[in-house]
Amino acid sequence: MTNIDATHHITLQSWVADANGHAEFPIQNLPLGIFSRGADERRAGVAIGDHILDLGACVAHGLLGGAALAAARAASSGTLNDLLALGAGPRRALRVALSAILANGHRAQDLAASLLHEAARCTLHVPAAIGDYTDFYAGIHHALAVGKLFRPDAPLLPNYKHVPIGYHGRASSVRASGVAFHRPNGQRKPAGSTVPDFGPCRNLDFELELGIWIGPGNTPGTAIPVGEAAGHVAGFCLLNDWSARDVQAWEYQPLGPFLAKSFATTISPWIVTPEALAPFRVAQAARSEGDPQPLPYLWDAADQHAGALDVDLEAYLLTPAMRAAGQAPFRLALSNTRYAYWTVAQMVAHHSSNGCDLRPGDLFGSGTLSGPAMDGCGSLLELTEGGRTPIALPNGGSRRFLEDGDEIIFQAHGTAAGAVPIGFGACRAVVLPAPSPLS
Amino acid sequence: MTNIDATHHITLQSWVADANGHAEFPIQNLPLGIFSRGADERRAGVAIGDHILDLGACVAHGLLGGAALAAARAASSGTLNDLLALGAGPRRALRVALSAILANGHRAQDLAASLLHEAARCTLHVPAAIGDYTDFYAGIHHALAVGKLFRPDAPLLPNYKHVPIGYHGRASSVRASGVAFHRPNGQRKPAGSTVPDFGPCRNLDFELELGIWIGPGNTPGTAIPVGEAAGHVAGFCLLNDWSARDVQAWEYQPLGPFLAKSFATTISPWIVTPEALAPFRVAQAARSEGDPQPLPYLWDAADQHAGALDVDLEAYLLTPAMRAAGQAPFRLALSNTRYAYWTVAQMVAHHSSNGCDLRPGDLFGSGTLSGPAMDGCGSLLELTEGGRTPIALPNGGSRRFLEDGDEIIFQAHGTAAGAVPIGFGACRAVVLPAPSPLS
Repeated sequence: MTNIDATHHITLQSWVADANGHAEFPIQNLPLGIFSRGADERRAGVAIGDHILDLGACVAHGLLGGAALAAARAASSGTLNDLLALGAGPRRALRVALSAILANGHRAQDLAASLLHEAARCTLHVPAAIGDYTDFYAGIHHALAVGKLFRPDAPLLPNYKHVPIGYHGRASSVRASGVAFHRPNGQRKPAGSTVPDFGPCRNLDFELELGIWIGPGNTPGTAIPVGEAAGHVAGFCLLNDWSARDVQAWEYQPLGPFLAKSFATTISPWIVTPEALAPFRVAQAARSEGDPQPLPYLWDAADQHAGALDVDLEAYLLTPAMRAAGQAPFRLALSNTRYAYWTVAQMVAHHSSNGCDLRPGDLFGSGTLSGPAMDGCGSLLELTEGGRTPIALPNGGSRRFLEDGDEIIFQAHGTAAGAVPIGFGACRAVVLPAPSPLS
Repeated sequence: MTNIDATHHITLQSWVADANGHAEFPIQNLPLGIFSRGADERRAGVAIGDHILDLGACVAHGLLGGAALAAARAASSGTLNDLLALGAGPRRALRVALSAILANGHRAQDLAASLLHEAARCTLHVPAAIGDYTDFYAGIHHALAVGKLFRPDAPLLPNYKHVPIGYHGRASSVRASGVAFHRPNGQRKPAGSTVPDFGPCRNLDFELELGIWIGPGNTPGTAIPVGEAAGHVAGFCLLNDWSARDVQAWEYQPLGPFLAKSFATTISPWIVTPEALAPFRVAQAARSEGDPQPLPYLWDAADQHAGALDVDLEAYLLTPAMRAAGQAPFRLALSNTRYAYWTVAQMVAHHSSNGCDLRPGDLFGSGTLSGPAMDGCGSLLELTEGGRTPIALPNGGSRRFLEDGDEIIFQAHGTAAGAVPIGFGACRAVVLPAPSPLS
């Protein structure tokens, strides 16, 4: 483990009682977000147990000083872009200050307690204005499984183990957890038909991904060396890259996914910082014996040694029938961020290697992070083998792809010996029926 | 011709003497942009001849009223997003008011003359904060020519004449005309090699495209019917989708172009409005006898009747040797916006058909608009047949692809019987050498 400090200490407890032992937001986490109450304006906060501490109110009441004060002030515009732009130093200073304020025995405990909001009474928003959203394809087990459906003899394309494959996504499609969306209409060519038709997507799917928030980023024409790339990652979230498989199959040649992805992308709204995740860093181990050595611009020894993440990822399904029966969500997948073939630093270095400028508030998706076995499938495409093998649900129902009213719920948790477990908070959304197709 | 009014009248002349007979910006054009002088802040303006009229100053001096005043006020933030959000009504009102102010004989001519800036002393900027940039593939002659290089027997993919193919581009890559950029480094696999290497792009190309500015756009989940789509187009520009062909060939499977495009995209900075282009509307004629009927969501009789544009597009090359010798730029291509297989309204309707929200300030590229013959090739990929057939330059040099110091210059002009010709202004940029590849 690297960069473990007092803010992670296993004995550290908060005077916010519900934070101690909290599965997501103990005092060792302290993720950053943007929230509102009722019709109030959006403001920055930090999650602590079942509460949110108002950062602007901390500033107003003089609870912060120095670099932590500068960081909190940068978060006062209703988005976190300016805070992400400051980079690791001010973000760490803010973490240290908030950890002290929220720890047992702080002298201003009573004042700080008056600046807490019950999270259940707040709305969480997309925490930054996203300049560009890029979706990678780093989940090698997903790439293998999807490739096998189309090319059984050569599932991985020749470039896969050399190039961190990615594509530009649609920034406007990104919504915070809890925002329902309509099943998309789209153009697709049914099997056996010679002509396409247009109507509600028949093969609606989810994709289980890690989201990566960028800050501060680079200037145009200036690449970020892989050894410095971690300094341009401001934090992490969960990301559901909802996918219309029938639309995708018909539209994607030759320029890649377009309307099959741009109708909705759901993220967990809290930015879990690299500092909070320090105890869950591991060596990069997704490359196999005999795999090609990455090119030098993608290779850094320290990144290989501790640049991967060990965070459990889960995907659950809650159908209308299960909801009506009071049943718990059904787990579709248990996977892990370790299954990414490329580290986040490699993604950053590759993305900027042509001089492309990354800006504070840019968002990456990792690509679908499936595990090696069927219980780790991060999409229904894999789990039902392209819809050919429906999965059985505990209430007797089944699914090939998602139906109206279905909800997909992602969770993520880091656990490690000697560390307090932390979570990302939920990434969930309900599928609403398609609007009437225009005729 | 539709929507022709007094602002287009062929006898209309301006008291700005250099506007009369101006190849780009006569009083019949009045494109909108964002400019600055020296270190001054960015402000909105309208091009008139070799000058720019300061919109904020017009507001301050009481030259505007009603909807025109509201439109000009919306342009006061240093970007035109809020003006684009207002839609056609206020934009038209502003055009009518500006046309009157700038026409011969206006009572406030002396005051307005004091609010002019010499365009040559101003810097023009990207006129709006681009939320998302989408690049279409609507140039059928380009798609045919590129397809023939790879699939001589079946150059067009089966979806081409059904789906307005597009992909998400990189918003951060968009620069205003005149901003030089570095040749990108990138990963590519040389012919005959089994492994890729990394270094300066060897096959740097341009793509001649029409740019389309969106406003006001739609809310998530709500498609824009094709018959209403023209109302969500705020204007047009030229767009150079610079392309690294060697990088593209190696990276693009299975998710499409990524770093081969994201290093730079150059646009002409003036937004030429749909009102200014009204005299250059023509029937959609790019579909051939026997082509499939587009699906109903893409079909509108009025759009087919007058939804295409007849604007000449030119691409010129100026090499360092030509520049040193004082030679004029060499014309590589003369093409026309008529060669788009899909109208702009069809692009808007398709893009939003899945509920994807388009926002004011979003930018579309049309795709490379090549003509049917070799003199209309909108890229070197076509002109040199993938680099196999170098083109000869008038000074004795030749080109397969672009070399350092080369400048590509696009121009666009609308001409029609009974109308004053207008232009878009130049879209130009110089290729700088690649930075040292990181090792």
